[in-house]
Amino acid sequence: MANITKKVSWSSRADESGAAGEGTPLLNGSEQPRHSRQPSEGGSLCQIGRLSTVDLEEEITSDEESQRGRPKEIPHNEKLLSLKYESLDYDNIENQLFLEEERKMSYMGFRCLEISRWVVCGLIGFLTGLIACFIDIVVEQLAGIKYQVVKENIEKFTEVGGLSISLLLWAVLNSAIVMLGAIIVAFFEPIAAGSGIPQIKCYLNGIKIPRVVRLKTLVVKVGGVICSVVGGLAVGKEGPMIHSGAVVAAGVSQGRSTSLKRDFKIFEYFRRDTEKRDFVSAGAAAGVSAAFGAPVGGVLFSLEEGASFWNQMLTWRIFFASMISTFTLNFFLSIYHNKPGELSNPGLINFGRFQGGLLGALFNVLNYWLTIFRIRYVHRPCLQVMEAMLVAAVTATVSFTMIYFSNDCQPLGPEHTEEYPLQLFCADGEYNSMATAFFNTPERSVRSLFHNQPGTYNPLTLGLFTLTYFFLACWTYGLAVSAGVFIPSLLIGAAWGRLCGILLATITPDGSIWADPGKYALIGAAAQLGGIVRMTLSLTVIMVEATGNVTYGLPIMLVLMTAKIVGDYFVEGLYDIHIKLQSVPFLHWEAPATSHWLTAREVMSSPVTCLNRIEKVGTIVDTLSNTSTNHNGFPVVVKVSGSDEVLARSLINHRSLFAPALSRQVFVELARSRLTQRKLQLKDFRDAYPRFPPIQSIHVSQDERECMMDLTEFMNATPYTVPQETSLPRVFKLFRALGLRHLVVVDDENRVVGLVTRKDLARYHLGKHGLEELQLAQT
Amino acid sequence: MANITKKVSWSSRADESGAAGEGTPLLNGSEQPRHSRQPSEGGSLCQIGRLSTVDLEEEITSDEESQRGRPKEIPHNEKLLSLKYESLDYDNIENQLFLEEERKMSYMGFRCLEISRWVVCGLIGFLTGLIACFIDIVVEQLAGIKYQVVKENIEKFTEVGGLSISLLLWAVLNSAIVMLGAIIVAFFEPIAAGSGIPQIKCYLNGIKIPRVVRLKTLVVKVGGVICSVVGGLAVGKEGPMIHSGAVVAAGVSQGRSTSLKRDFKIFEYFRRDTEKRDFVSAGAAAGVSAAFGAPVGGVLFSLEEGASFWNQMLTWRIFFASMISTFTLNFFLSIYHNKPGELSNPGLINFGRFQGGLLGALFNVLNYWLTIFRIRYVHRPCLQVMEAMLVAAVTATVSFTMIYFSNDCQPLGPEHTEEYPLQLFCADGEYNSMATAFFNTPERSVRSLFHNQPGTYNPLTLGLFTLTYFFLACWTYGLAVSAGVFIPSLLIGAAWGRLCGILLATITPDGSIWADPGKYALIGAAAQLGGIVRMTLSLTVIMVEATGNVTYGLPIMLVLMTAKIVGDYFVEGLYDIHIKLQSVPFLHWEAPATSHWLTAREVMSSPVTCLNRIEKVGTIVDTLSNTSTNHNGFPVVVKVSGSDEVLARSLINHRSLFAPALSRQVFVELARSRLTQRKLQLKDFRDAYPRFPPIQSIHVSQDERECMMDLTEFMNATPYTVPQETSLPRVFKLFRALGLRHLVVVDDENRVVGLVTRKDLARYHLGKHGLEELQLAQT
Repeated sequence: MANITKKVSWSSRADESGAAGEGTPLLNGSEQPRHSRQPSEGGSLCQIGRLSTVDLEEEITSDEESQRGRPKEIPHNEKLLSLKYESLDYDNIENQLFLEEERKMSYMGFRCLEISRWVVCGLIGFLTGLIACFIDIVVEQLAGIKYQVVKENIEKFTEVGGLSISLLLWAVLNSAIVMLGAIIVAFFEPIAAGSGIPQIKCYLNGIKIPRVVRLKTLVVKVGGVICSVVGGLAVGKEGPMIHSGAVVAAGVSQGRSTSLKRDFKIFEYFRRDTEKRDFVSAGAAAGVSAAFGAPVGGVLFSLEEGASFWNQMLTWRIFFASMISTFTLNFFLSIYHNKPGELSNPGLINFGRFQGGLLGALFNVLNYWLTIFRIRYVHRPCLQVMEAMLVAAVTATVSFTMIYFSNDCQPLGPEHTEEYPLQLFCADGEYNSMATAFFNTPERSVRSLFHNQPGTYNPLTLGLFTLTYFFLACWTYGLAVSAGVFIPSLLIGAAWGRLCGILLATITPDGSIWADPGKYALIGAAAQLGGIVRMTLSLTVIMVEATGNVTYGLPIMLVLMTAKIVGDYFVEGLYDIHIKLQSVPFLHWEAPATSHWLTAREVMSSPVTCLNRIEKVGTIVDTLSNTSTNHNGFPVVVKVSGSDEVLARSLINHRSLFAPALSRQVFVELARSRLTQRKLQLKDFRDAYPRFPPIQSIHVSQDERECMMDLTEFMNATPYTVPQETSLPRVFKLFRALGLRHLVVVDDENRVVGLVTRKDLARYHLGKHGLEELQLAQT
Repeated sequence: MANITKKVSWSSRADESGAAGEGTPLLNGSEQPRHSRQPSEGGSLCQIGRLSTVDLEEEITSDEESQRGRPKEIPHNEKLLSLKYESLDYDNIENQLFLEEERKMSYMGFRCLEISRWVVCGLIGFLTGLIACFIDIVVEQLAGIKYQVVKENIEKFTEVGGLSISLLLWAVLNSAIVMLGAIIVAFFEPIAAGSGIPQIKCYLNGIKIPRVVRLKTLVVKVGGVICSVVGGLAVGKEGPMIHSGAVVAAGVSQGRSTSLKRDFKIFEYFRRDTEKRDFVSAGAAAGVSAAFGAPVGGVLFSLEEGASFWNQMLTWRIFFASMISTFTLNFFLSIYHNKPGELSNPGLINFGRFQGGLLGALFNVLNYWLTIFRIRYVHRPCLQVMEAMLVAAVTATVSFTMIYFSNDCQPLGPEHTEEYPLQLFCADGEYNSMATAFFNTPERSVRSLFHNQPGTYNPLTLGLFTLTYFFLACWTYGLAVSAGVFIPSLLIGAAWGRLCGILLATITPDGSIWADPGKYALIGAAAQLGGIVRMTLSLTVIMVEATGNVTYGLPIMLVLMTAKIVGDYFVEGLYDIHIKLQSVPFLHWEAPATSHWLTAREVMSSPVTCLNRIEKVGTIVDTLSNTSTNHNGFPVVVKVSGSDEVLARSLINHRSLFAPALSRQVFVELARSRLTQRKLQLKDFRDAYPRFPPIQSIHVSQDERECMMDLTEFMNATPYTVPQETSLPRVFKLFRALGLRHLVVVDDENRVVGLVTRKDLARYHLGKHGLEELQLAQT
């Protein structure tokens, strides 16, 4: 797997859209900031695997070449960390403007803000519920129409024996629908592909994934997921709901839509990374809540993904959003159709745990190889659309073949739960069980597997179904379509779980105690899903809430725990694999255990470009335009004042006290306003947030370059700093717990010696054989 | 309520036990460190409401007076913060010894540690489950015996008309049992009083409550709660389980018992505050899990109380402990008796929300006044025992009176769930409904209220029962007995909920849709409990898990949310009230909203006693013995090296670069070892943890005082520091998120100017009219 090439699909369009890129201040990909890692003047000890500047130049050359002729491919291996991703700043920038505003605000003002937060969370829940409702109804309607068309066709041709025409119709219909979904995803918004859960995980972790929470993404996501599900792919609509909830939250909390160019002039206080993140976590929770009817599970999902910034009030607000979301969905769906759609009363077993872990790990390994293949060969949008169509056609063909050769006929009793039973070659009053499993939407199939009477499925059907569906689902995840992996996993697990149940019932003498294979289906489903995504707490609650019964929460927990432990032995969870393959600088919960011997001096980036408190405009513009700096925050240093002699000494010693980290964007705003002779206010930053203009968009004349600019008002006068002897775990803890973007490293006399950024910390990770260091690269 | 006197009961014995007090290094209460808050030399701006030294002297005088003659009473008002509580250090002290150990440890070593953590969590769950099982069985047995005795007596005297003798027997029996429980609590371990939940909240918050996690506390707690429940008080055994779980966790994770003088030489790595806290949160979760059969609810309980330090692995470990705990309990109980003890299938309503909030607030206000009264007048152990006996007698009398005048006879059907039905004046085949409600353990009564057929209770019975039980429960909480408030709250709520249900059924024309009053009972119970304790997320899950049905999770959530909002409008939650009344320096989740104008310079304690890196033993001993320092950590400062001239200048400027905060205890160990010419190791600290000996226990001769001591090995070389201009919310965030004990404040040239401790931050709180500042006092 070493040194294959890759193209990063998450933000492949960032390079194309250039200046409009969310927070990307540069005009095109080749001008993006380069990471120059030179040993600090103080003599850095850390030389392990660090890229020299020469390496970087080579890469950039090949990058530029690729843009001219051949498809954009860059050297890639497992041990790479992309420099492309910017960080979000989850630490409030406490500059003078901010502090003044806070000081002016009355007690009542803060109360009102708190109330607005609740209102926004309510809105997030409401809108997320509505979207879930919309997706549900549209999928049902379209699937119904498709079913009618195909069924009539099949019935017509079953008699005359020309089933191949039916197959063709089915495959073409599915492919066409999937094509539509793939086209909007691949050509209009590639970030809307997949479930979106890894991206939301990254966002909550503090990584800016371009366009992940835009309105356009939401629209494409909703459209895409409808097409995928109706197109008969082995996908679910649940994962995308989580992403949708997050987008809704990011939109509503900002009180405007940049895409629609509407600004409602409300919630302006929330226009910064910290507040936005809190709402996005509420949105993700509301999404889970709407997808599974699991409000508590939603809260726990957000918790498992981002607990480091949680507090009690936030927990409650998120809970509120989840609650409203479920309630809205239930309310509107019950208006639409009056049937309770819940799974109910599966029974207790504690069985099938190991299979879940093993099969989950197998799924992940296969999908890993497939993703590597895709990164290498399937990176053009048209190829992606074709692959999606191919999968749709193959899915239809395989299903059809299976159905054709299956002779598992079941009586069409009064209590059957299938909405779309297919008779095929069965006798009147019977339906083809295999056909039903394939022909229904996956949600319905799962429900049937949990619910149906013993004897509804025969073992051969289930075995074949498991096998084929396993590979289809594995192939499908990672396609350029909006799709979730929850429901397919549940379906695979339910199928083999039920199979195990049936087999147990036949081989044991006292078959009656193993009577209900539905129980096994539930446990198998939990095991399979747990083995693939590796969540435990939230997944337990989601399963319990989705099935509406806590009686057997305990076996579900045990199964999920075991599946996680067994699976972790072989390979990571699916989402983590995808995050890793994108070379995202994801910060885990804790620093690698064996990293105490590393200190801030060794991990930091240095030298750091510093600015003076009163600085020449030219210097500022040059600093910001210089893309070879590897950080977007610049410490502002102040000379120690006192007698002339001390001042002189300070200059010689370069004694700078320290070091407020400000972002590139803030300076841009600053420079622009200064040039127009206007006093800059916090409002200016809020209006521009989060799409700050690039420095290149400002024209600075030679006269203006000579002006002096006072940075006092805009700098964060009290940034967090650490001494250079601080151990990596300690730096990591500070950085992660407070959601920092830059951490200034100072020496004993408070001079700036370096800057720790997310990438410096994410480089170190614990491999199979102890601490490993990832390489940094412009991917 | 202003300026009444108080005696702090949580640690009233700390003053008596003196040198043996956990981490209290001083010989008696009057010698405890005094807080001298003088403006810093640099000229502190903060003079608001700060105690001058004169005020303090006056207080201490009155304190000393009180010790001579009259009961120890000190001036107390709402705006006081006690200086008595030490903090725990949830930030690892990364000194040279620690770092060396970590560096030596292999990758496998860390893996083994991780596995031990899981094993410890498993053990915690197992033992907590066993204790719950033990309490349950003993309570059942004893309650059964008591019931038999009283019942036979009543039956004997009902015929001859001498019920007053029965009353007497009942009252005396109850009082005697309660007396036993009150005596062990009041005389042997006062910290075991109440539910223990506020104390565990404080522990997780980082406050050292003396003796809260000792084995003796556990024994007294278990014995006490059995007596309280069997003695017929209006209490539950659930709150104490949470405390018991925490004690088990603190004990098991340390691999030894100081009380029993057994050291198993295992888990030595876990002998520090950070690790211990993680396990204690797992123990608390296991306690909830055992008490309510709610493993997920347990995890959420720990989360709501201490989320700031959470990470994913810890969440999973805590979840594991919870799971094991429930499983153990169920396993052993099912061996003991084979009947499922679950509440099941209440129905959906969303009603009674406002009452819950209002009644909860009323409960809290009444209990607040009562607690003030108790603090003032009922502080001697014998008085406390007498009050407990009085309550027991009154409870018995009131119950008896109610039963006597009640004529609510119900048929003793085949499906009745009462284990102890009382016939009294009812016809044969019937039982007295009121008698049953009072006579059963509260858990059983709650179950009956949820479960029983419509018509089992008549409205008058329920109304009277609610009224009396409300006041009894309110009076009972805060007595010197081990007792929980969960079950009484549920019982009150269930009673008025059922009452509302019955009334609704009678006044509405279509009574059938309001048919099941059990639903109302459930919702009422949730509302009442939510109104009293004000938890939402965890309580929802606990209720759902305890009732075994998620169908109506949504109405429970809505009810809890509303109860919280309504209740918060009037008064805080019960636990917060009790924490506040103890003047505990509890840190809430965030700094008060309006505090941005305060900076570290204003909140910090100064001047700070600093030590040199190489210091004279005499100076160290004097510093540690000097009880007028208001902090237990001492920055170690180092002169800037360089040319002679610079060094001289450094001395004049007092330019000290930094500032490792070390605790008093560490120095004690250090001084002792140095004097015995032995090299100190990390093991020495671990062996002494957490009961470090006081400095007075070390005799230092005049020669020894002249020795020099090198502190390099023991100081935390890279403490977190903040500049003095840092705003309070920023300081607060750093302090709270990282669980610090001391935070060093430095000026621009890295000289130590002050130290921020927990008390400095806890002083500021948001009152009704904006920011208020609490006074610090030796209470």
